[in-house]
Amino acid sequence: MTAYRPVDPPARVLMGPGPSDVAPSVLRALGAPTVGHLDPMFLQVMDEVRAMLRPVFGTANEMTMPMSGTGSAGMETLFVNLLEPGDKALIGVHGVFGGRMAEVARRCGAEVVTVDAPWGQALDPDDLMKAAKAKGPFKVMALVHAETSTGVLQDLSPMRAIADAAGALLLTDCVTSLAGVPIDLDKHGVDAAYSGTQKCLSCPPGLAPISFSDRAVTTLKTRKHPVQSWYLDLNLIANYWGGARAYHHTAPVNMNYAIHEALRLALDEGLEARFARHARHAAALRAGLQAMGLELPVKASERLDPLTLVAIPEGVDDKRVRGRLMSDYGLEIGGGLGQFAGRAWRIGLMGAASTPRNLTLCLSALSASLQAEGFKPKADPLAAAAEVLAG
Amino acid sequence: MTAYRPVDPPARVLMGPGPSDVAPSVLRALGAPTVGHLDPMFLQVMDEVRAMLRPVFGTANEMTMPMSGTGSAGMETLFVNLLEPGDKALIGVHGVFGGRMAEVARRCGAEVVTVDAPWGQALDPDDLMKAAKAKGPFKVMALVHAETSTGVLQDLSPMRAIADAAGALLLTDCVTSLAGVPIDLDKHGVDAAYSGTQKCLSCPPGLAPISFSDRAVTTLKTRKHPVQSWYLDLNLIANYWGGARAYHHTAPVNMNYAIHEALRLALDEGLEARFARHARHAAALRAGLQAMGLELPVKASERLDPLTLVAIPEGVDDKRVRGRLMSDYGLEIGGGLGQFAGRAWRIGLMGAASTPRNLTLCLSALSASLQAEGFKPKADPLAAAAEVLAG
Repeated sequence: MTAYRPVDPPARVLMGPGPSDVAPSVLRALGAPTVGHLDPMFLQVMDEVRAMLRPVFGTANEMTMPMSGTGSAGMETLFVNLLEPGDKALIGVHGVFGGRMAEVARRCGAEVVTVDAPWGQALDPDDLMKAAKAKGPFKVMALVHAETSTGVLQDLSPMRAIADAAGALLLTDCVTSLAGVPIDLDKHGVDAAYSGTQKCLSCPPGLAPISFSDRAVTTLKTRKHPVQSWYLDLNLIANYWGGARAYHHTAPVNMNYAIHEALRLALDEGLEARFARHARHAAALRAGLQAMGLELPVKASERLDPLTLVAIPEGVDDKRVRGRLMSDYGLEIGGGLGQFAGRAWRIGLMGAASTPRNLTLCLSALSASLQAEGFKPKADPLAAAAEVLAG
Repeated sequence: MTAYRPVDPPARVLMGPGPSDVAPSVLRALGAPTVGHLDPMFLQVMDEVRAMLRPVFGTANEMTMPMSGTGSAGMETLFVNLLEPGDKALIGVHGVFGGRMAEVARRCGAEVVTVDAPWGQALDPDDLMKAAKAKGPFKVMALVHAETSTGVLQDLSPMRAIADAAGALLLTDCVTSLAGVPIDLDKHGVDAAYSGTQKCLSCPPGLAPISFSDRAVTTLKTRKHPVQSWYLDLNLIANYWGGARAYHHTAPVNMNYAIHEALRLALDEGLEARFARHARHAAALRAGLQAMGLELPVKASERLDPLTLVAIPEGVDDKRVRGRLMSDYGLEIGGGLGQFAGRAWRIGLMGAASTPRNLTLCLSALSASLQAEGFKPKADPLAAAAEVLAG
């Protein structure tokens, strides 16, 4: 006999940087009976997941599928498959995840050149272009589309030209943008991208959707050295997800049920409508936060709809406020990461969690918790939010 | 709108090499509401998972936890953390998974020496000892405890002395033994082991339990080069699963609910009772198969209770029989892998699927399907199985 009781999680409201609230039908799909990883029914699930991922990524790439790990495994998948020892990588760093990309690339034996921007700002395309021309050629150029550590959205439109000047494949982190913000890999000429399931797809964490262009696949297939990770070797994995169905590893069957349902919900809603919903609710949340007198460190043109960075006012205790939101309201918002630790909160409105109900609850609960800290809101956040929602 | 219908898997009976049938309470745990990966409730789940994994592995190792990937990610975790470029690895190969270990070790830049045994047989300790003495010293010695490709159980008792002669850490693959067969890492002096969730734990695939001895941890901490995989770097991951709770990657929350419940069920049953159940049902299955006149290629002393290899009789079509079992009975058994492809089947009786009902169904359905192929059973398999079950 064990002393442990069965898992019985409380119903939280997840408005941090992810995981986000999971839709009931996705949880039901997750808990459906497991079948074999070569069962005809599961092979159909795999095919449909691939087909549904393509429009969400905005691509026709044949090699589009979920890797059997979390978002960080997706990041590692891109670098281990596309870099070889001695290759050069140009990497934009303006937050935790750009820094992580540089670290992963170094562990592949690559020579890494970073182009930095202050945290809370987007990368400057001119800086990237200068480095591309002065320090190239590069094998890959990588940057974060949606910096989960800062809530900054990077405009991808100038990047293909810069990558061309660098002679590089263009790689992007789309962890917090996928299914919440348009990505348009093909339009922007992105060669490889990765994401996670637990942000705007509102699926539990555990899979990392990736997409590789034909050019990236050619780079992969003409490698001189084997991919250093056997587990993430796309040469092998493509034979399971593709036509041959050759056993590589045992796919996480139930997690693939869940992403299937999450993708279905996204496409049923319609991607344009889904993006508009994320934008509308983010605008209402920001209006409410600003009405209270809180500062948003990211400038308006670079804000990421699914995740809003808000400065913690002077004299307010970070952990006490987040603790009160959790204990009194069951509401999770995110602390700051890296340079923003203790200085800012991250409030997510992602996927199924991007609702008027959630943003209203968050503004109300945050206002009350800040007042308990002695902070006086300037104006009524709910009125400001309601005005935006009313359009 | 998408054209795809919600996932609605049929209720299979999973008697292949895994995944095995998942207990209803494990599926319910899997589908419970997602909470944040730093939620106090989830941190408690993590602690309890670690505490429950230790007795199942037969260890007191502090560094015992599930990795966020499938069993093969567990394999890679051991090698990337313990090997550095130029290290020597002694690896026993008597099936697919020993061969995979050698490949993974090579991709870590190690010099690999293999000791081979014919598929369907255990490794010969004398062969290993000779290589340990003649070709050592080695950094690691690795072998498969339960070869999922052949159904062979390797006796671990002589291995510590051989690893000592090699000057090596002792590594074992316990994918198909964990929670179905005694492992006793500490008793056998194993330094690092990995497993998967979808075999005798009867949890869906998606996590890889691992355990590292203090000596293995020391090797990890005194590395000269960074671990080549950032995602699997135990130096970093230990800071999340251990006291500091430092964010590394977003843990697969719901999969950890599921392994928590699967471990709870295993400990509630009692490990000795659980091992005895696997042994009893395996004996009954084998008696039934042999009564029909089918051959078991693995000799009696080396058979793995959770997975039985059975030769496909002359003139019988592999795929047609497996197809009939699936279409007529919803019953999945495994085809052969590697050298046994088309020559043998693999029948699993793992975890929640190791029941008299399942072995009876399998013997009945297989007998009927073989007769449809023109094969004449020698004797009644059910009578032979019932005799074993009656004790």
